[in-house]
Amino acid sequence: MEIIDIKTSKSYPVYVGQGAIEALPEFINRYSQISRILLITDEKVAGIHLHRVKEMVEKTGKPVEVCIVPEGEHAKTFEVFYQCQSFALAHNLNRKSLVLALGGGAVGDLAGFVASTFMRGIPFIQLPTTLLAHDSAVGGKVAINHPEGKNMIGVFYQPDAVFYDLDFLKTLPEKELRSGFAEVIKHALIDDSDFYQWLITNIKNLNSITDEQYLTIVKRGIEVKAAIVAADEREDGVRAYLNFGHTLGHAIEAAMGYGNFTHGESVLIGTVFALNLSLKKQDFPFNLAEFVQWVQSLGYQTNIPETLQKQTLLSNMKKDKKTISEQITFVLLAKLGKPYLTEVDDRTVMGELKRQ
Amino acid sequence: MEIIDIKTSKSYPVYVGQGAIEALPEFINRYSQISRILLITDEKVAGIHLHRVKEMVEKTGKPVEVCIVPEGEHAKTFEVFYQCQSFALAHNLNRKSLVLALGGGAVGDLAGFVASTFMRGIPFIQLPTTLLAHDSAVGGKVAINHPEGKNMIGVFYQPDAVFYDLDFLKTLPEKELRSGFAEVIKHALIDDSDFYQWLITNIKNLNSITDEQYLTIVKRGIEVKAAIVAADEREDGVRAYLNFGHTLGHAIEAAMGYGNFTHGESVLIGTVFALNLSLKKQDFPFNLAEFVQWVQSLGYQTNIPETLQKQTLLSNMKKDKKTISEQITFVLLAKLGKPYLTEVDDRTVMGELKRQ
Repeated sequence: MEIIDIKTSKSYPVYVGQGAIEALPEFINRYSQISRILLITDEKVAGIHLHRVKEMVEKTGKPVEVCIVPEGEHAKTFEVFYQCQSFALAHNLNRKSLVLALGGGAVGDLAGFVASTFMRGIPFIQLPTTLLAHDSAVGGKVAINHPEGKNMIGVFYQPDAVFYDLDFLKTLPEKELRSGFAEVIKHALIDDSDFYQWLITNIKNLNSITDEQYLTIVKRGIEVKAAIVAADEREDGVRAYLNFGHTLGHAIEAAMGYGNFTHGESVLIGTVFALNLSLKKQDFPFNLAEFVQWVQSLGYQTNIPETLQKQTLLSNMKKDKKTISEQITFVLLAKLGKPYLTEVDDRTVMGELKRQ
Repeated sequence: MEIIDIKTSKSYPVYVGQGAIEALPEFINRYSQISRILLITDEKVAGIHLHRVKEMVEKTGKPVEVCIVPEGEHAKTFEVFYQCQSFALAHNLNRKSLVLALGGGAVGDLAGFVASTFMRGIPFIQLPTTLLAHDSAVGGKVAINHPEGKNMIGVFYQPDAVFYDLDFLKTLPEKELRSGFAEVIKHALIDDSDFYQWLITNIKNLNSITDEQYLTIVKRGIEVKAAIVAADEREDGVRAYLNFGHTLGHAIEAAMGYGNFTHGESVLIGTVFALNLSLKKQDFPFNLAEFVQWVQSLGYQTNIPETLQKQTLLSNMKKDKKTISEQITFVLLAKLGKPYLTEVDDRTVMGELKRQ
């Protein structure tokens, strides 16, 4: 098992490895004051992992209450947020209670927001079960959605620890692996050309990733993310680079209806879009055709779904919370591993949308 | 005009005095990046002060959107919270926008929670219009209510400034003055016996407080609060002392239905209860009969309303978010100005409830 230390306003460890979850009870019992534990998970994850995890958590000797929420983005609504708060109050949670988030990014975002706002904040620990969560479980962004936009209501709230048990990844359907792997690709593109080369050379099929490869992927992905978050916890500067591919990605996700198209699948299309724009603005050595071929061979769609109106995507991008002025701000690459922020006028954006 | 500096994880100024609001436009324009302003106020305050304040804020040259919410605790519901977020999104607020809270404690709590969670936190400034807000506008506690308890859902989020214009207090009905003055009394009792003597000697009628007396009351009240908050922003220790009178006060408020009985009126009854318990546990020189007579002459009720079931109050107190173990934790006084925390068993609590 590897331990990555995340250094933000609060420092906390990320335990990564097969069977990482086994170290959880001892970790919890180091907080001698924890009175009760609220485990939040979704319907799907509950069916697969809840039994084992609950047994593990019960080794702490603390009372454990389980709140099961809908799957995916359907968990990140005001209604579900409110239901979790009601559940916590009905089960007598108090300021000395602990929230555990067992699931993917959506469960982590919801449970983190619940923990951050319950009685003005109680501790929480992330137990990610997806590859995508290598991204979302680190960095302290927690939020729910508003019909007008994703993650519009939330706060920065760091977990007390992350236990990333790689055994959980073995049960993931390919679609979910694709969603998470898109963020791995992003981390490589914006920060580490060697890692990118390693990925394009070694990962040929998402269904045959070895244990050792998973450890490399997750560890390196978290390290890239952690370094950026440590430099800029509240997104005043370099943290915005993590949005590479996300400006269009979020717009596609919103237009398709949350939960109908995975986050990573949307981001991957946004990544191709951002790479295209990058190369148009500034030429650098990057084989875009090879990239597109590689990700297509992994099962990704690289074109904007035909059912979507370009005008809708443009207006969604303008509503993005990273947009300050009237023009849309994009993260582009000056070269591989070197992102920068720039505003792009609507005409150029529309032109590119029509091409993709 | 006086300026009190509040030193927490974020330092910010409290401007106190007649016409304090006139300094607001220049202060806002020091944030060169503010794009839009969302002014949140309630129906009642809007009718009295909105015109003047809006004109003042428009001097900044920034677009100002006004969101009017229901009065009092009716503003602190999930529904209103959601409406404010929707309003902000519909009016294109973004991360560079500013929230102004014009009103009493409820508007400040709601608007602060909206600001703290909108796109993970945007700046906000408190413009208190009540005496009670001398307490709530300082210290960074923002929250909404849950049917199961007051302020259950919230965060710690410091404002960027507080502009406390004492002219606003002149329009307050006596009931509202009484609500706020209960917290002034509390601040004196837990921290400053000289201030308590000054109050009981000088304040004989809440309708004839002079401008000079208001400045003393508000300034000293804020200074007591600020010192405690600076020592313990997140309520791990001494900040809990601010709950003097509030354990029973909150329980009464909840049992009466929020908004039907003012916060201060409830807290004052809780204060008499806590003084009684304090003197029972530990004798110290304090003339409780004189205190009760004084507050009654100011129009306060000092007995628990007869319509309330003692059992309901006991069970409400057990749900209080300060309650960690099975017994109820009270703030009591060892002597005037010297609070401490202690658990009190149910039997003693019930005995005292029946006496009051």
